[in-house]
Amino acid sequence: MAKIAVVYHSGYGHTQFIAQQVAQGAQADLVAVDADGNVSESDWALLDAADAIVMGSPTYMGMVSWQFKKFADASSKRWFTRAWQDKFFAGFTVSASLVGDKGMTLAYLQTLASQHGGLWISLGLPPSNASAATRNDVNNLGGSVGLLVQAPSDGGADKIPAGDVQTARQFGERVASVVGRLVP
Amino acid sequence: MAKIAVVYHSGYGHTQFIAQQVAQGAQADLVAVDADGNVSESDWALLDAADAIVMGSPTYMGMVSWQFKKFADASSKRWFTRAWQDKFFAGFTVSASLVGDKGMTLAYLQTLASQHGGLWISLGLPPSNASAATRNDVNNLGGSVGLLVQAPSDGGADKIPAGDVQTARQFGERVASVVGRLVP
Amino acid sequence: MAKIAVVYHSGYGHTQFIAQQVAQGAQADLVAVDADGNVSESDWALLDAADAIVMGSPTYMGMVSWQFKKFADASSKRWFTRAWQDKFFAGFTVSASLVGDKGMTLAYLQTLASQHGGLWISLGLPPSNASAATRNDVNNLGGSVGLLVQAPSDGGADKIPAGDVQTARQFGERVASVVGRLVP
Amino acid sequence: MAKIAVVYHSGYGHTQFIAQQVAQGAQADLVAVDADGNVSESDWALLDAADAIVMGSPTYMGMVSWQFKKFADASSKRWFTRAWQDKFFAGFTVSASLVGDKGMTLAYLQTLASQHGGLWISLGLPPSNASAATRNDVNNLGGSVGLLVQAPSDGGADKIPAGDVQTARQFGERVASVVGRLVP
Repeated sequence: MAKIAVVYHSGYGHTQFIAQQVAQGAQADLVAVDADGNVSESDWALLDAADAIVMGSPTYMGMVSWQFKKFADASSKRWFTRAWQDKFFAGFTVSASLVGDKGMTLAYLQTLASQHGGLWISLGLPPSNASAATRNDVNNLGGSVGLLVQAPSDGGADKIPAGDVQTARQFGERVASVVGRLVP
Repeated sequence: MAKIAVVYHSGYGHTQFIAQQVAQGAQADLVAVDADGNVSESDWALLDAADAIVMGSPTYMGMVSWQFKKFADASSKRWFTRAWQDKFFAGFTVSASLVGDKGMTLAYLQTLASQHGGLWISLGLPPSNASAATRNDVNNLGGSVGLLVQAPSDGGADKIPAGDVQTARQFGERVASVVGRLVP
Repeated sequence: MAKIAVVYHSGYGHTQFIAQQVAQGAQADLVAVDADGNVSESDWALLDAADAIVMGSPTYMGMVSWQFKKFADASSKRWFTRAWQDKFFAGFTVSASLVGDKGMTLAYLQTLASQHGGLWISLGLPPSNASAATRNDVNNLGGSVGLLVQAPSDGGADKIPAGDVQTARQFGERVASVVGRLVP
Repeated sequence: MAKIAVVYHSGYGHTQFIAQQVAQGAQADLVAVDADGNVSESDWALLDAADAIVMGSPTYMGMVSWQFKKFADASSKRWFTRAWQDKFFAGFTVSASLVGDKGMTLAYLQTLASQHGGLWISLGLPPSNASAATRNDVNNLGGSVGLLVQAPSDGGADKIPAGDVQTARQFGERVASVVGRLVP
């Protein structure tokens, strides 16, 4: 069976909650980047062994958090040896605004995957954007490159719209489906 | 008084409507890129004379429309002679999804401005992204690089949320304010 | 055997030459976007049938040419029906400057692939960037997201550095290798 | 006289050297982000008082270093109060490859400036990209959004091509010229 890992940093719990939904959908292991931007050796081993790595971060000041970037910088050890070449990657981000600069974060996560010589799995869900659309719909935000989630600035993870939570699950399922189909 | 021009392409009228709001806020002239991607000679002259050019396009398939891109390619004539060097620029985009790939379009409009050696004016409005926020609020989408507008896929310009329309006006006013203050 | 198509627009022959190298490396069919931004019906059928589509364009004014964008906009017909969902994609761009804004073009090609629900194949070649590196080396420009090629502003395709031409071939081979391994 | 600050993080001295060249060209103060991603209180005060902030970082794994990102995240305190609204910003990056993913770093620096409601000053220098061009030329890399510098992976700052060093000086002069002309 395909091995999938979800690596994420969460500042206030919203991204952790979404990471859990993605992991549930993908039947994936969770790897948390801690508050100092570090990941344990056993977690690095788990990432090394994964067929696919799903990366998640809040968007802070228009980009992944510094803690997630510290993880990305530390992955340069794998970059030097091409250890993650041809691995599958996917990504998600959470921020308070409907749009914010989530697109910049996803463009970067894709670039990070390409630095490692990876293969990128897009969100793969059509948007719900007609007049009757609501925040309860799957992909109501209309993402394409990866999973987009909005959490109001003054609420906890329980305030994330139901549609975004459901999108997170389906995104996880999609990653598992693509990887399960393509990895021998 | 500072001269401002709003150059835009509109496929179905939504972007034209927003261009009009921006132009009203900025007391700017309007230049329409036509359905073949062309702009008249008098309009090129108007752009040449402007202190600031605000650029707008729908986001189609993740980027400015081909008609707007044809205009951008034609502006290479000005690029060669550095005719637009140090001009002010700003940008906006309209698409059906709340997020979609609007961020990619704005990143490109900024790049186009930089190709011309320009100065970029950001949106400059704080986001409305708390629990009580509605689509009637100014900058509810949470843009930063430029103006973001959402128009449902099955409606006309009259279905654009009131907050986005108001944001367009204030964005125009901001461009006029910055340019009026900085241009002698 | 996996079916691969290389779809490209070329303004002055440089991008066509590179498309040919990629196609040779990948044993792929070539689809040219013409000077009006159009593609024939038989070419659309060829793209529909492909397991992987490699997209190439010059970078003009910081982005794909308007002709390539017209092709991208026309692909919205496939977008509506999700006809290209889970297809593999990859990309390349050619411009006169060593850097220029090639990165913006590749970020867009990746976004276009994601709009279609695709899977992105990165360049997957380490950079040659030590003191002894020359323009005869594979991936001397140091691309990651896709293939980068530089052609001097005053020369033909024969002036493209040997290293970039060789990188194009190896990029084609990589796409064929990944797709051949993963597609049943 | 206009006050300009250059804030940068440097991992191995290359970016520091370039920051010094930019600062010399702009007659600017230097602010170093330290190895833990911190900036002193007096340096924050210097940034607050500046008419223009030039931001510089190496490109590591396709983006600004985590230390620079930690500085960016810490600037959210200014973001909340809109303290840097309408300030001028500009940016530069250094990496080992000719291209690498420098474009992604500059796109982010621009986004960070926009988060703060700033005005962005582009590089404003035409590229040197004909057959006779050399690495001794100003803007031989062909940047537009900001300053691009390449330093071989196995050499010190003294191995940075003369053209890139000269471009850094002229970029500093340009920032000073634009700000000096526009700020009362």
